[in-house]
Amino acid sequence: MSMWDRLLVDCNIATMEGGGLGVIENGAIGISDGKIVRAGKRTELAGYRARKVDALDGAWVTPGLVDCHTHLVFGGTRADEHAMRRAGASYEEIAKAGGGIASTVARTAAASDEGLLAQSRRRLHALMRGGCTTVEIKSGYGLDPKSELRLLRIAKQLGEDEAVRIVPTLLALHAIPADQRDRRAHYVSEMIDQLIPAVAREKLAISVDAFCEGIAFTPAEVDRLFKAAAAHGLSVKLHAEQLSNQKGAALAAQYRALSADHLEHLDEAGAKAMAAAGTVAVLLPGAFYALQETRKPPVDLLRKHKVPIAVATDCNPGTSPMLSPTLAINMACTLFGLTPEEALAGMTINAARALGLAHAIGSLAPGKAADLAVWQIESVSELAYWVGLPGPERRIFGGSDA
Amino acid sequence: MSMWDRLLVDCNIATMEGGGLGVIENGAIGISDGKIVRAGKRTELAGYRARKVDALDGAWVTPGLVDCHTHLVFGGTRADEHAMRRAGASYEEIAKAGGGIASTVARTAAASDEGLLAQSRRRLHALMRGGCTTVEIKSGYGLDPKSELRLLRIAKQLGEDEAVRIVPTLLALHAIPADQRDRRAHYVSEMIDQLIPAVAREKLAISVDAFCEGIAFTPAEVDRLFKAAAAHGLSVKLHAEQLSNQKGAALAAQYRALSADHLEHLDEAGAKAMAAAGTVAVLLPGAFYALQETRKPPVDLLRKHKVPIAVATDCNPGTSPMLSPTLAINMACTLFGLTPEEALAGMTINAARALGLAHAIGSLAPGKAADLAVWQIESVSELAYWVGLPGPERRIFGGSDA
Ligand SMILES: [Zn+2]
Ligand SMILES: [Zn+2]
Repeated sequence: MSMWDRLLVDCNIATMEGGGLGVIENGAIGISDGKIVRAGKRTELAGYRARKVDALDGAWVTPGLVDCHTHLVFGGTRADEHAMRRAGASYEEIAKAGGGIASTVARTAAASDEGLLAQSRRRLHALMRGGCTTVEIKSGYGLDPKSELRLLRIAKQLGEDEAVRIVPTLLALHAIPADQRDRRAHYVSEMIDQLIPAVAREKLAISVDAFCEGIAFTPAEVDRLFKAAAAHGLSVKLHAEQLSNQKGAALAAQYRALSADHLEHLDEAGAKAMAAAGTVAVLLPGAFYALQETRKPPVDLLRKHKVPIAVATDCNPGTSPMLSPTLAINMACTLFGLTPEEALAGMTINAARALGLAHAIGSLAPGKAADLAVWQIESVSELAYWVGLPGPERRIFGGSDA
Repeated sequence: MSMWDRLLVDCNIATMEGGGLGVIENGAIGISDGKIVRAGKRTELAGYRARKVDALDGAWVTPGLVDCHTHLVFGGTRADEHAMRRAGASYEEIAKAGGGIASTVARTAAASDEGLLAQSRRRLHALMRGGCTTVEIKSGYGLDPKSELRLLRIAKQLGEDEAVRIVPTLLALHAIPADQRDRRAHYVSEMIDQLIPAVAREKLAISVDAFCEGIAFTPAEVDRLFKAAAAHGLSVKLHAEQLSNQKGAALAAQYRALSADHLEHLDEAGAKAMAAAGTVAVLLPGAFYALQETRKPPVDLLRKHKVPIAVATDCNPGTSPMLSPTLAINMACTLFGLTPEEALAGMTINAARALGLAHAIGSLAPGKAADLAVWQIESVSELAYWVGLPGPERRIFGGSDA
């Protein structure tokens, strides 16, 4: 009988296998080569030996959390803009004072690579302290090809430096820069023609994303982008139906998108199309909360058509300055009515699906990465219950304490 | 020239003195005997020396946060009840399944002192990690004299064990136990007559609190309680106007209450009475959020009459399982429209007022306790901006790193 690297005992486990929590009480987890060898009842694993045995004192073990939608790399904050809004300033006044996305783009451009890395790293550390072992990071505050590539490289660097899996996404069409508004078609072509081949060649991202909205890009423009992405073997995902129903989700499903995200205005045809294509619905309660929106995503429609639901922080400086994955879980329940089980699946197995990584992470199954969070709680539903839970007692990344 | 114990330099300071943030850029703070000797511009303090000098790398220093309203000591959680609610169960079904406050009272009674201390300590640690140096703790899950005294002693023990100031409050009238409903007057008398003298004699609490509400205790019952408290030299505070307008705030003001808390249904007469009495309005956005209430406290009325506003987590198992003070600050801004400055004052100087401790804590003035939080942020408004900020880089309690 082989010797495992590590054995965790005296714990309860939510494996997230089998379509639910996959609870194993009084369980044990065997780890070798950074991967899970087996998770089961302590009694079933009694005969196995390991070089290192950790007794977890009755704690709960879940897969490390997966934050599948963030815009983590940006310069500056928009705290002053938020303060102005609380003091009664209108969006127009804020825009006139230089606020909005343009201010983030300017501050991102003004920051050195080192400065951008340092401030992004602080935000990443917050998500890691909150229990994340995988974090998706979108580019999108560059708005020109060279600047977008820079942001993807910074995201990649974070993944190399830190004990966390970074999944970079090219957000190719985010906003039209003010000086490009009268040459819109040219701008879109430039972003597609220059970025897609470069990203595919340098493997700087797995997926390509866009913001499909009345105030951003049209379905026709997104269609052009997705065609190019498909031609270069890149997956796609889409910011869809956040502020209005542009039928973006159905468009994304046509390209078998990994996910369609936000979805407050999704209709039934869109939900059906997503279900048929296996496209994950990524819900972002942080933006709903921070913007104090009232229209919720149609959770019942998603359930009815069995669309997998993921949940993410959407960490970004403008609409969701959220730094806590467990708070995203709590808000998904409190604001959108998800059950604790759905919300936890939303930041584990379904978030892994939304990144095309369900074969490797997101549940505690043999062969998957030993990315774990160890929580000192009595019941796994506490992960959804507490408002502002600080994070797990321990985080294990690739089999090692991190 | 005397030698200080400690000098903090290379920092920006929000002293919370003078009615605003009291910002000192490029500041320094001198500490001796656990107290602040002086906070000022680095240049003004250039001539002073200290045994220990810490350069803070441009971080922001604020007073340690003061959470002036919690019900931190309780047994068990109500996570399963919350899960049932998300799965569609009605309040009635939950009550029939043994949920609600009765379940917390039963679990509190069933827990050993040791068990209760351990789980309360975990919650206290979360608030401390979030930046708190002072935490008020109400009793209230005993519902009989002996059990309430037990909870106050456990709160006191936490204060002795941990690097945090605990301010215990006797919540004498919280709910009527099911077996006392047909002898209500007797129950109220018993709680008043037995608890008030014992608490005053043993100095187990500074203040006496009650839940004045249609579903709880009447103004007449609260009036009897407050009379007894006053006769024994105890301050009072009140859960008032949360679900309906019982004119509780005005009643509390008659007794020069330290605070009236919740206040969603406060009217102008109540606000005026509070202003005249110096009674602080404690706003509790966690409960508003968790219950998904729609009626907000009348912030404009409070501003108009210059009622000091505090903000607290209301940490409790039923209506506000909130563990993060900075999230309370963020929610006070996002949900109630406070400015970042008001919300930060609400968890520092005005929270100190709500505890009768403004002479000793809550701002960085000479002679006050050197209770500080050191935040790695660019602007102090970030404390209100981030949703789920993990906590300060450093917490200093009574002049020492904690
Ligand atoms: Zn986004
Ligand atoms: Zn309360």
